[in-house]
Amino acid sequence: MAKTDLVAGIDIGGTTTSFGLIDRQGNIIARSSVPTEGGIQPGRFVNLLYDRIMALMVSSSSTHRLKGFGIGAAGANSKTGIIEDPPNLSWKGKVPLASLFTSLSGLPALVTNDANAAAAGEMNYGAARRMSHFAVITIGTGIGSGVVIDGKIITGERGLAGEFGHTRAAGTTGLRRCGCGSDGCLETYTSVPGLLLTARELLDESGSSGYSGLLSTGDITGELLYQAALKRDRVAIEAYRRTGTILGTAIANLALITDPEAIILFGGMTNAGKYLFDPVMEAMNRGLLARQRGEIALLASGLDGDSAGILGAASLFRAEMRQKA
Amino acid sequence: MAKTDLVAGIDIGGTTTSFGLIDRQGNIIARSSVPTEGGIQPGRFVNLLYDRIMALMVSSSSTHRLKGFGIGAAGANSKTGIIEDPPNLSWKGKVPLASLFTSLSGLPALVTNDANAAAAGEMNYGAARRMSHFAVITIGTGIGSGVVIDGKIITGERGLAGEFGHTRAAGTTGLRRCGCGSDGCLETYTSVPGLLLTARELLDESGSSGYSGLLSTGDITGELLYQAALKRDRVAIEAYRRTGTILGTAIANLALITDPEAIILFGGMTNAGKYLFDPVMEAMNRGLLARQRGEIALLASGLDGDSAGILGAASLFRAEMRQKA
Repeated sequence: MAKTDLVAGIDIGGTTTSFGLIDRQGNIIARSSVPTEGGIQPGRFVNLLYDRIMALMVSSSSTHRLKGFGIGAAGANSKTGIIEDPPNLSWKGKVPLASLFTSLSGLPALVTNDANAAAAGEMNYGAARRMSHFAVITIGTGIGSGVVIDGKIITGERGLAGEFGHTRAAGTTGLRRCGCGSDGCLETYTSVPGLLLTARELLDESGSSGYSGLLSTGDITGELLYQAALKRDRVAIEAYRRTGTILGTAIANLALITDPEAIILFGGMTNAGKYLFDPVMEAMNRGLLARQRGEIALLASGLDGDSAGILGAASLFRAEMRQKA
Repeated sequence: MAKTDLVAGIDIGGTTTSFGLIDRQGNIIARSSVPTEGGIQPGRFVNLLYDRIMALMVSSSSTHRLKGFGIGAAGANSKTGIIEDPPNLSWKGKVPLASLFTSLSGLPALVTNDANAAAAGEMNYGAARRMSHFAVITIGTGIGSGVVIDGKIITGERGLAGEFGHTRAAGTTGLRRCGCGSDGCLETYTSVPGLLLTARELLDESGSSGYSGLLSTGDITGELLYQAALKRDRVAIEAYRRTGTILGTAIANLALITDPEAIILFGGMTNAGKYLFDPVMEAMNRGLLARQRGEIALLASGLDGDSAGILGAASLFRAEMRQKA
């Protein structure tokens, strides 16, 4: 019986790393995740990840054969495949992720930006099928974007295109300090930590323990905030509203430059549904030209969980292999 | 003797319309300009423009033959060739510029956005020769941009890409009303009228007549402001500084999304040289990722006057004719 070729698709986010084994048709045969260990040496983290992927191979089926690794990573340069001083990981200097995987496995590896991987996933399997112009906005520990123009993910002159999270956000004080060293970057307001900080500030301002009683003590988590919003907690709803308004205004700027068919929001925060999408949509439409208003769709990822990232990284790997063959 | 094929390149800006006769090699054989008559019916303005171009043909040489019209216009949709409710002209509804020229002349005509025409001009003949990733920012009555990615001018899903002038500007109150109906658009601060308004506000604030004495009475013009800056007028220098800082911050946002090799500033305001370029460069670099700082060139148009617009419009017309042939 012929062996089935699989590619390991890996999505290294600021907090969680997801990975899966993906066949030629884009089916995820097996999948798992680990916390992203930004605090240990990158070589040790790659060892750990490689062991977990091999364990997944062994437990899946003996008729499978691993072809290589497609890796999407926050802060990775899509042209060079190198991660350099990633703002959300403590890895220092240049980390050659692809060659670390290859030196362990003897197999080829491709590294791309995590947001570009998500864009490839949405284009091939998700919400952006048959679209030529769209952008995927990844919302997590940071904010990233994968921008597709005329059916191609743009990478720019140095492979750094799509760094939407570090654009200056209009409609803010611009004082929040970003991991990149600048102040007022979009992601300091609209990433998950940015949202939670806004909720904390609103609680401190109001001096109250939160209408729902859910936000009274200790850390606020994304899940807690969402539960509070469901219970009509005014602090929680206002935190989503402010965050969504800042994000929607910034998305309008991106859309004025690129004129997309749709904007796809990606990441756990999108589970908040209308609490996030309504203010984003309103601010986006307010910022657009009259001729674009109501014309640009705002969509949630068309793939469950974080599948777009691992599917996209695997599909970019296969495309590169075909090109080389 | 064989006739030389010429194309009429036309650049319809918010204030001035430039036009010229351009040969196959990109030489401008003859050129002239008229004030843009945004207050009269578009059909009458096209009549006037057509007459002036025919007069230019007659006065140039009998061995020339006109092939058609390449028209760049502020607010034009590069995909449809239609101008729709241009914010800086009083033309209402949809103006089919190309068919107006064709119905007068019987010759083909192509309409594109004026900033995209400038980008084509810089790419073929100016500061962006041999570049694959750059943006031209046109500064005039409004602000436009032509964005080139992988050697192609991007137009987006609806032909509206590059509407940089209507992005929301960070670092402002966001209260200035724009011709597009929104508040706080970049062009309300960094167009020529935006710069002059800032100078006026600074004069009113300081209560003084301007250090140089040049800005005391009546209207402030761009030329007057520049002369005042040359005489070290603090109000004039501060007006350029504030304007350049807002523009540079917005350019950094554009560069974070597209990662260009260079940004090219285009339009009469660039004559202000260091008074404008220094604050733009400083704010741009402050807004970029550390890895991009000092890597993105900030250039003035590589063509004198407004040649890029008319050369670019003509070259886009020739490219379209070749494609159809």
